[in-house]
Amino acid sequence: MVIFQPSGSRGRVKDGTTIVDASRQLGVELESVCGEQATCGKCKVRIEEGFFERFGIESSTDHLSPIEEREKKFFAKHTELKGYRLSCVTEIRGDVLIFVPEESRKGKQVVRKAATDRKIDVNPAVRNYYVELAAATLEDTTGDWERIGQALKAQHGLEELAIDYRTLLTLQETVRKGDWKVTVSVWMGKEVIAVQPGRVEESYGLAVDVGTTTVAGYLCELSSGKLLATDSMMNPQVTFGEDVMSRITYAMTHKDGLKRMNDAIVQGLNRLAGQVAAQAGIKRRDIVDFTIVGNTAMHHIYMNIYPVYIGKAPFPPALHASIDVKARDMGLRISPGAYAHALPIEAGFVGADNVGVLIAEEPYKRDDMMLIIDIGTNGELVLGNKEKLISSSCATGPAFEGAHIKYGMRAAPGAIERVQIDPETKEPRYKVIGNDQWSDELKEMGARGICGSGIMDVVAQMYVSGIILKTGRINTELDHPRMREGEDGWEYVLAWADETAIGQDITVNQSDIRAVQLAKGAMYAGAKLMMRRLGIDKLDRVILAGAFGSYIDPRQAMIMGLFPDCDLEKVYAVGNAAGDGARIALLNVDKRREANEYARKVEYVELTVEQDFEKHFAQAMYFPHMKDEFPHLEGLIPESQTAR
Amino acid sequence: MVIFQPSGSRGRVKDGTTIVDASRQLGVELESVCGEQATCGKCKVRIEEGFFERFGIESSTDHLSPIEEREKKFFAKHTELKGYRLSCVTEIRGDVLIFVPEESRKGKQVVRKAATDRKIDVNPAVRNYYVELAAATLEDTTGDWERIGQALKAQHGLEELAIDYRTLLTLQETVRKGDWKVTVSVWMGKEVIAVQPGRVEESYGLAVDVGTTTVAGYLCELSSGKLLATDSMMNPQVTFGEDVMSRITYAMTHKDGLKRMNDAIVQGLNRLAGQVAAQAGIKRRDIVDFTIVGNTAMHHIYMNIYPVYIGKAPFPPALHASIDVKARDMGLRISPGAYAHALPIEAGFVGADNVGVLIAEEPYKRDDMMLIIDIGTNGELVLGNKEKLISSSCATGPAFEGAHIKYGMRAAPGAIERVQIDPETKEPRYKVIGNDQWSDELKEMGARGICGSGIMDVVAQMYVSGIILKTGRINTELDHPRMREGEDGWEYVLAWADETAIGQDITVNQSDIRAVQLAKGAMYAGAKLMMRRLGIDKLDRVILAGAFGSYIDPRQAMIMGLFPDCDLEKVYAVGNAAGDGARIALLNVDKRREANEYARKVEYVELTVEQDFEKHFAQAMYFPHMKDEFPHLEGLIPESQTAR
Repeated sequence: MVIFQPSGSRGRVKDGTTIVDASRQLGVELESVCGEQATCGKCKVRIEEGFFERFGIESSTDHLSPIEEREKKFFAKHTELKGYRLSCVTEIRGDVLIFVPEESRKGKQVVRKAATDRKIDVNPAVRNYYVELAAATLEDTTGDWERIGQALKAQHGLEELAIDYRTLLTLQETVRKGDWKVTVSVWMGKEVIAVQPGRVEESYGLAVDVGTTTVAGYLCELSSGKLLATDSMMNPQVTFGEDVMSRITYAMTHKDGLKRMNDAIVQGLNRLAGQVAAQAGIKRRDIVDFTIVGNTAMHHIYMNIYPVYIGKAPFPPALHASIDVKARDMGLRISPGAYAHALPIEAGFVGADNVGVLIAEEPYKRDDMMLIIDIGTNGELVLGNKEKLISSSCATGPAFEGAHIKYGMRAAPGAIERVQIDPETKEPRYKVIGNDQWSDELKEMGARGICGSGIMDVVAQMYVSGIILKTGRINTELDHPRMREGEDGWEYVLAWADETAIGQDITVNQSDIRAVQLAKGAMYAGAKLMMRRLGIDKLDRVILAGAFGSYIDPRQAMIMGLFPDCDLEKVYAVGNAAGDGARIALLNVDKRREANEYARKVEYVELTVEQDFEKHFAQAMYFPHMKDEFPHLEGLIPESQTAR
Repeated sequence: MVIFQPSGSRGRVKDGTTIVDASRQLGVELESVCGEQATCGKCKVRIEEGFFERFGIESSTDHLSPIEEREKKFFAKHTELKGYRLSCVTEIRGDVLIFVPEESRKGKQVVRKAATDRKIDVNPAVRNYYVELAAATLEDTTGDWERIGQALKAQHGLEELAIDYRTLLTLQETVRKGDWKVTVSVWMGKEVIAVQPGRVEESYGLAVDVGTTTVAGYLCELSSGKLLATDSMMNPQVTFGEDVMSRITYAMTHKDGLKRMNDAIVQGLNRLAGQVAAQAGIKRRDIVDFTIVGNTAMHHIYMNIYPVYIGKAPFPPALHASIDVKARDMGLRISPGAYAHALPIEAGFVGADNVGVLIAEEPYKRDDMMLIIDIGTNGELVLGNKEKLISSSCATGPAFEGAHIKYGMRAAPGAIERVQIDPETKEPRYKVIGNDQWSDELKEMGARGICGSGIMDVVAQMYVSGIILKTGRINTELDHPRMREGEDGWEYVLAWADETAIGQDITVNQSDIRAVQLAKGAMYAGAKLMMRRLGIDKLDRVILAGAFGSYIDPRQAMIMGLFPDCDLEKVYAVGNAAGDGARIALLNVDKRREANEYARKVEYVELTVEQDFEKHFAQAMYFPHMKDEFPHLEGLIPESQTAR
């Protein structure tokens, strides 16, 4: 017997079932960010000892697989002693009582890589056509496919179509099931990729943005363009390396490295497709079109192309252009006849995700000098206007996606997403996803962690209020009840245990700050060197895109020094523009052409090889910058902090 | 220790190895017509008992898997007692001494479905282009595929090419292996389907004719059209049914029936591809183009299309037109990017094989009224000229392919291929494949069986010489040493045991004659009903195509009554025209278009539903026919036999 507390769900599971699997079987919601890779540590549970013993049954802990080495890093010694285990690796081998702590309970997810509400002209690659056929008779034994071809010509004016091989295989069954009335899905006016019995108006497509750390999927109805469901997950490849270079290295140093990473992402994409399909009440195999974006390394890995040559000079990719391949050839389990459209890549690591940003933001149609910052584990920058566009990329790390931050979490209910700190009292107020009130209005906030926008806010506010210095060091000279030396060094208590849902203080510590500095410093230095390249000293406009873009506060971002000074009126967040670009390409074939055109026009610059990159990077680690002026921040940062 | 006699080859094999596999490992040539399906019974071996016992080792027979039920049908009781076993099902489990009888020894095969020496205009679908690329540099990091595209345009004027997904995956490796010089294989001027390092002139294609009983493959060099290798095998589907209807029934009555039959033929095709590739000294994956023909049932099964609707009224196929699919999607293990071109089908069971005959013989370009007979397990007939063409099909059974004939065999060395019988003495003389002399010139002929043309000859000659009557009955009133009542009823001894290589008399018995009568009767009746349909009473020309077409003697065929009377000068055999058609389509894309055009123009007639088909069939069972006149046979058949 397995019992989950506090829900009380109970039942029997097969010996060897992991706790995560058991939770699914028994309908218990348990967090699993990393897809059971034992890398996120978010599925911790506590084994309640002594419960069964009271009834004369052996000890619960004997009924689990032994503690594994990879579990240990997620547990401070004392919690381990309390019987905590990682659900995704722990197997059940008998009766056990499991307590799911608040922080491990799955909330209804807020997709951090949420789709922005954009107006998209709809001109999809896949369109449905309903046809009525004359039944075969002894006088007319025309084959089913020719019969459909004739009807498509007579009833819709379509000619010279091919038929997908897999679709052909079930054609006769489908035609008879529909009593000689069927709906035919035609791709690009060229190929029949699906046939369904009867009349079917809707058709479905999935746009996917494969980030280094986070993967987001957008399920759309193709004829209306309507967004039906979104979902995200951690990129299962994180177990092979945190950033693009470490994944490329993994492929180079392991015989089956590429295969393993490709399998991981393909399985992840299938899971994601299943999730959004379930949300929309359709089947995964109803998905008849698919677009995908990602940086160059992600692109090569999800396409199953050996990424070694993009990891060493002179870094040429296998191809730049978009490519249409049968989704089944990639291992995707959507409609068997569907194509996957992989958007083009630019150069270096500036990949299809940035192309997505381009077709979403269209800087190539604008006069003003625009900087687009796409914030992710691999950050990408585009600078220019309709005259000229340059791009670059930099490794920022996953800090803004909640990873490598002690209380970092994804944008789910309970995540602190907004923070303000009173410069005088140093007391914070914050907002939590799923709750409209601020923490100074309500005692029990139910906070469980801090998501990306919350991290950006809290760091900026800690700087403004003098809790951290311009260098990023925590000001240990401040005597304040929220500041203390904890297990991981100095930290600032953002939320007291009694305000949280996890029963412990939520803090920001020195290493959290360092992770943010590295990320923002790389972005800033990149932007500055690109401005130098184009010979400009002022930005007309800054667009903040990325994983959490829609939640970012432009002012906090500039205070923190994510990008050079700009009129704050002209800085705005657009959400996950890469994902939006994938969605735009899904819904409009003209934009696919535009993507190919502009992907080739953007000029890639490799900034890290510039002589003085290191110097610029070091200067940009400061808040907001070691030397640069920020006229538009005047009055927003106290005098005491602007001096060094 | 396993020892094969008489070769004396010996060695150790793993327990559980079949005798066939052991023979391969030890280099012993053992016949295996049916592809180890335990259906042809041609791999019989004798286990030599008492050999090892002499050396104090246990009995050999204990060292084999027990006799299986399916083996038994191939053994008369007395041979079973002598220790005969079927090599393909018998597993070795210890020391054993195996004697391979002469008839089970594999000869170098004469491809019965041999390719005819035809002049074919060469305009292949796949062409090779050699390109030299500029190496990638830090200044020019253009992707490999774009680099190749630019070179193809600049050096060969090719534009807007796509690249096969699987080919893309290894592109960068190949380019570097070739030091930026590669040969690109382009399909239909549209798609790059293979890239090889360096300069490669040759490219290879495989044309396949899937008969109901026999499968033939033709490996060609595409740029020259040269035929490099041919091979044939028994269709592995024979285990699921002898003829097309029984295979369709198998698919309808077994849940995984289609899958099993499709797997069988696909595996067979892969084996065949491997064999011809080995003959030509290339690898299977060097094959970059593939064409395939077969009757409608074979077509649906090799395409993996559920064949049930072609088996019940009104018999519409899934499609008529030719289709190009990725060979890998069909499970074919040739070049991963290669396409398979499945030729179109006509109607009813008149399939792509007959289309192959059409484009090989081109009756649609002729004035004279031509009958084309394609002899196989499923016989197909085409009648007409450039004004109009009609086609039909009939189930003839595999008699002319050597099956269902007691001493029937395929056209390999040792097969009796020509027979003459003296009308006075009733003594035969015969010729054997691999030997230019007649049997009356040489005592030891080494005959092992009778192949299709030999069967046709011997039956015609038995009729002419009065050994069989006009009705087909063996004339038991003749008192002749070669005529006797044997195990299987009355029989005529064609070769005495001491002339053969198998140590037993080779005979023709009453049931052999009946099988031939059924086959030829169906053909004749079909031809006659088609002539009635076109309102003609005379044939200008008869073309004999099929499995053994090139060996057939037109005169013997007409004496036997395979087709209505015709000037013997105008009757000729063309070999396996269906296979030739597949080869023509492989080498010339214009003929692929022609195939589609004429496949739709030929009018299919379903003869078996005609009211008086049975009557015509019954009359045509007679030699040469119950009633019809054969002016062109005058003087060739004795008076005594022409009367009833």
